[in-house]
Amino acid sequence: MVDAALAEAARLGVPQCVAVVDSGGHLLAFARSDGARIGSISIALTKAVSAATRKRPTAEEGGGDPIMTIRLALAAERLTGIGGGLPLVIDGHVVGAVGVSSGTVDEDTTVARAGLAALA
Amino acid sequence: MVDAALAEAARLGVPQCVAVVDSGGHLLAFARSDGARIGSISIALTKAVSAATRKRPTAEEGGGDPIMTIRLALAAERLTGIGGGLPLVIDGHVVGAVGVSSGTVDEDTTVARAGLAALA
Amino acid sequence: MVDAALAEAARLGVPQCVAVVDSGGHLLAFARSDGARIGSISIALTKAVSAATRKRPTAEEGGGDPIMTIRLALAAERLTGIGGGLPLVIDGHVVGAVGVSSGTVDEDTTVARAGLAALA
Amino acid sequence: MVDAALAEAARLGVPQCVAVVDSGGHLLAFARSDGARIGSISIALTKAVSAATRKRPTAEEGGGDPIMTIRLALAAERLTGIGGGLPLVIDGHVVGAVGVSSGTVDEDTTVARAGLAALA
Repeated sequence: MVDAALAEAARLGVPQCVAVVDSGGHLLAFARSDGARIGSISIALTKAVSAATRKRPTAEEGGGDPIMTIRLALAAERLTGIGGGLPLVIDGHVVGAVGVSSGTVDEDTTVARAGLAALA
Repeated sequence: MVDAALAEAARLGVPQCVAVVDSGGHLLAFARSDGARIGSISIALTKAVSAATRKRPTAEEGGGDPIMTIRLALAAERLTGIGGGLPLVIDGHVVGAVGVSSGTVDEDTTVARAGLAALA
Repeated sequence: MVDAALAEAARLGVPQCVAVVDSGGHLLAFARSDGARIGSISIALTKAVSAATRKRPTAEEGGGDPIMTIRLALAAERLTGIGGGLPLVIDGHVVGAVGVSSGTVDEDTTVARAGLAALA
Repeated sequence: MVDAALAEAARLGVPQCVAVVDSGGHLLAFARSDGARIGSISIALTKAVSAATRKRPTAEEGGGDPIMTIRLALAAERLTGIGGGLPLVIDGHVVGAVGVSSGTVDEDTTVARAGLAALA
């Protein structure tokens, strides 16, 4: 998944941080490409953990309402409503998630989707 | 950089905390002038770390949208959208950053700029 | 480096967590093989960060004295004297480090060495 | 104090991290010389905070007994028995402290003393 996501990031010309976690939100794999921001490492991980443990894309957190997602984030750890975190669903079960950060939200989401697609 | 920033702070008559970090966000130098707030030490450091590791002025974080920067800050550590953190760019590369806190955002930014200018 | 380390881990029949960081101690790559302990994720990262930012193998921390390494660990973050963290030295400069955890200290060290060797 | 300490460090040929805090243990000034370990930043700060808030040289913490200092460190924050933290005493009052880290304990202590001496 990480390799596929990084390949998509390279195709877009956007350096990225890509994190993959299991269903418990624990890190399985991570890669940061040259030029990706150090300050995005933690954001990629938060997106992945959020998507895995909340069982939904980060962009759909709090019904998509930014203020609600802030209130949720303040009540939890590693929960975010910023797009770029996608759950990995197999046979209807969330078995993990991928989180991407260092580009725009659209770029992050595209790269995360490429990661998921590699398993399809 | 710290000396130049403090000189500008003295010229403005505003006590300040000034932090300089390397490209990894690790502290290189710090100074707090008489009267600067203890509670601003950590803010100055956060501004510097944010500017260095996110490779952009803190005021430009999250596209300048306060709600978005709150959401980002909740997904990371030492990330802020409050002005006063500026990356130090040499030959197109972010090699570190300066963060200033204890005055208004405008004063902090002016003092941070004076720090950067000292290296020009 | 991560792939080479995991290959060695597979050869030994020991599931492992492998973390690679840059000279600032920031995560570059990570992988956890099937069966490796979730509780070892953070230890692998700590070993890598310690070796990179202290510029020495974790086993040589505090002169190899367990009590001294406990005292150092209490004065810092992500510093450990447990073997399995090795700095990556190029031309005499520490440019990063690898940290391995989930096996015995000997196994972790062997896997970390295999990671370093992949770059030689 | 920082400048004097760094001058002594240069004389010894040992890169150092030097932290100066006020009586409340809050950072007043900091400098890291080229080559000093990133992993020593926090240790220098801990030594300074410990010396200021415990009003004694770090080497005298817990009566100099390593096990006792570990027990104390586990019960507090930023308390250490590792030498290199010295309180700054004026007219019998502890008004702050200096903490040094990145060399041996002897080197750190020598550099810390040079920092104190600059105020005498």
